[in-house]
Amino acid sequence: MNIVLLSGGSGKRLWPLSNDIRSKQFIKIFKKETGEYESMVQRVYRQIRNIDADAKVTIATSKTQVSAIHNQLGADVGISLEPCRRDTFPAIALATAYLHDVQGVSEEEAVVVCPVDPYVDESYFKALKDLGELAQNDTANLVLMGIEPTYPSEKYGYIIPSGKENVSQVDTFKEKPDEKTAKEYIAKGALWNGGVFAYKLKYVLKRAHELIDFKDYYDLFDKYETLTKISFDYAVVENEKSIAVMRFAGEWKDLGTWNTLTEAMEESVVGKGILDETCENVHVINELDVPLLCMGLKDVVVSASPDGILVSDKNKSSYIKPYVDNIDGQIMYAEKSWGSYRVMDVEEGSMTIKVTLNAGHQMNYHSHERRDEVWTIISGTGKTVVDGMEQTVSAGDVITMQAGCKHTIVATTELKLIEVQLGREISVDDKYKHEPEY
Amino acid sequence: MNIVLLSGGSGKRLWPLSNDIRSKQFIKIFKKETGEYESMVQRVYRQIRNIDADAKVTIATSKTQVSAIHNQLGADVGISLEPCRRDTFPAIALATAYLHDVQGVSEEEAVVVCPVDPYVDESYFKALKDLGELAQNDTANLVLMGIEPTYPSEKYGYIIPSGKENVSQVDTFKEKPDEKTAKEYIAKGALWNGGVFAYKLKYVLKRAHELIDFKDYYDLFDKYETLTKISFDYAVVENEKSIAVMRFAGEWKDLGTWNTLTEAMEESVVGKGILDETCENVHVINELDVPLLCMGLKDVVVSASPDGILVSDKNKSSYIKPYVDNIDGQIMYAEKSWGSYRVMDVEEGSMTIKVTLNAGHQMNYHSHERRDEVWTIISGTGKTVVDGMEQTVSAGDVITMQAGCKHTIVATTELKLIEVQLGREISVDDKYKHEPEY
Repeated sequence: MNIVLLSGGSGKRLWPLSNDIRSKQFIKIFKKETGEYESMVQRVYRQIRNIDADAKVTIATSKTQVSAIHNQLGADVGISLEPCRRDTFPAIALATAYLHDVQGVSEEEAVVVCPVDPYVDESYFKALKDLGELAQNDTANLVLMGIEPTYPSEKYGYIIPSGKENVSQVDTFKEKPDEKTAKEYIAKGALWNGGVFAYKLKYVLKRAHELIDFKDYYDLFDKYETLTKISFDYAVVENEKSIAVMRFAGEWKDLGTWNTLTEAMEESVVGKGILDETCENVHVINELDVPLLCMGLKDVVVSASPDGILVSDKNKSSYIKPYVDNIDGQIMYAEKSWGSYRVMDVEEGSMTIKVTLNAGHQMNYHSHERRDEVWTIISGTGKTVVDGMEQTVSAGDVITMQAGCKHTIVATTELKLIEVQLGREISVDDKYKHEPEY
Repeated sequence: MNIVLLSGGSGKRLWPLSNDIRSKQFIKIFKKETGEYESMVQRVYRQIRNIDADAKVTIATSKTQVSAIHNQLGADVGISLEPCRRDTFPAIALATAYLHDVQGVSEEEAVVVCPVDPYVDESYFKALKDLGELAQNDTANLVLMGIEPTYPSEKYGYIIPSGKENVSQVDTFKEKPDEKTAKEYIAKGALWNGGVFAYKLKYVLKRAHELIDFKDYYDLFDKYETLTKISFDYAVVENEKSIAVMRFAGEWKDLGTWNTLTEAMEESVVGKGILDETCENVHVINELDVPLLCMGLKDVVVSASPDGILVSDKNKSSYIKPYVDNIDGQIMYAEKSWGSYRVMDVEEGSMTIKVTLNAGHQMNYHSHERRDEVWTIISGTGKTVVDGMEQTVSAGDVITMQAGCKHTIVATTELKLIEVQLGREISVDDKYKHEPEY
């Protein structure tokens, strides 16, 4: 199976765990049988591998997510990097061209496209495989998954099939309706449109060439910024006559709000949290290293991260967006390709961060114009390079770097350090990459 | 007026803002007209000064509170330091001897004793002055304040006066009753015992000499550890026939729980906090430097500090003690005589703290046996002394100190630094003071 997972942009609906650079699909919140926690993207990737160990998984995403994807899924997963956000049609066209020109997938093979974050069991991925086979067997140019509605939701688009068979032609599509209209649709046998579909690779490649002037994947990648923003629905689905839909009646949840997310959590508490015996339907997700005590609460979610603290009635949590849009916060924690960092202190004229480098990884060789830096290694071993001078370092070593000085650190083992930045205008933009001299 | 404020021990009832070394009376939670916040002890001290600018205020307390008292009230306030906790009779005897032998107060002057943390208006302190005058005029050997009950509380002891006059002799004292008994007491004209009383200095001094073998304040201070723990009620009040009580009907609150404390707060939010429009009777006290968002909550208090986070139904908050007794937390923030520190990161083998030294202040000259330290100055100017070597320092300077090395820092201006501690067994006990060599 060739599967493209669309890994959507960031969002603040799960603030303070999601922010402008950290998307909800990377929050480690689901307990595995081993007792460890996994994120949505890790869960989905594991489920796909369980169903089809040879599945060719490609994640269509933007640059900001690449580090998190490699950290969570390893180096082997395919990534179709979108140089900028251009809506779903360019993204799917690019991922399809990537499969063809980079991964060498034949034009005759089927491709399944699916969001990266459904909360489902493995029957869903079995259905995805069936979906791919239907496309492979030319059932239609596009084969959609239609999810059996469990209530008249106003949140989803609806697919009206022409018949009641497991697989049938699509009669019409309907936009998100009000509840009354949703009931009418369901009475007619309508299905939810979960944004999941399959096609033969050559079909989307042909549509892409009709709508965009490009030679191959590399050319498309280079001119990606010049493309018009347009959705796959608008560009392809609405103009296609040959569309089939396959029914899916298994578990399917869209964990887009704290309310739905906590419903899927196995445990009430992730991280340090204490609930008194009078708490009812309370969930705590605490990423801070301090205790969090809840007493006498009902239907409440509490989430704490270096970015902030949310305490919300679960039903009210879906209205979070306008409040967090007004929070103009510094990003306090970020995963990078080489590890992670956490902001510990911000003062006028200084910022102190804790840096964790994964074993074998290193920062880019870089310099800053407007700040000096001091590193104090607190654990691990590695090598620093400062203006070309190499030095082996371990816990207790201190490295001082003036503004303008080129520097990097290479971790031999996992390595942690405290970085004190000193200067008048400290900014992530004040960073200049250099060719390695080491 | 000579007034002794009993500044009680630490407690965790207002966790995470109060802890083993930080008592509730030092939490800055009350908004002043200037827009700044003041603590209970600052509020009480200001109110006393407003009523009697010349009042001689002595705070009877233990060593752990001295830094906080000087930081919050300045250097002028009298402190009767209890070398250890020995209950109220030894504490009041010591404070009385302190007033006589250190402050030079005459034996014929009256002394008023009062807890450090009542939430009251200035009429209360006017009443204290009256109480002192009653003692001065020999109305009785002990003159108590009796608070007019507003409900049949089970939390207070009761005083049954012999008559209904403003000042009358005490008939009997009653222990904390159940609600039904409290109603009966109130029907008989009983008053709450708020632990406030006045006496002539020589009266308590005489009692003290009868019960304890000591010469003067200095002698009493030296043998304080050998004294038996005994309450003032048990040692003095129960054996005294000449006791008067003065009625007080003004505002009086005992802010011992989050529920009662938040009732006294002028504003819903202290620190960074956002309440959505559906929150009802919600209070936020956030000492962290990150936003805290509350949505759809009712009758809830949320409090966040470097020590932890509490989210509690207000009524339930009075049952906090067993939960926080089980939290075996590191103290993450502390005020010291020279400034304050905050723990930013704890790892096996290292701890990183932020230190703020007030202008003109310095640490003790000290060393550690089992840890190295690295200081990175982030703001201000001062002088470090390391094994006798002096060095002027300012932002950006880095000082490294091996285990065993004697060191201190003297702040010229307010000075902030990041201290990285490195070692196997990092503990506050690993600290050895030395005579200054500078």
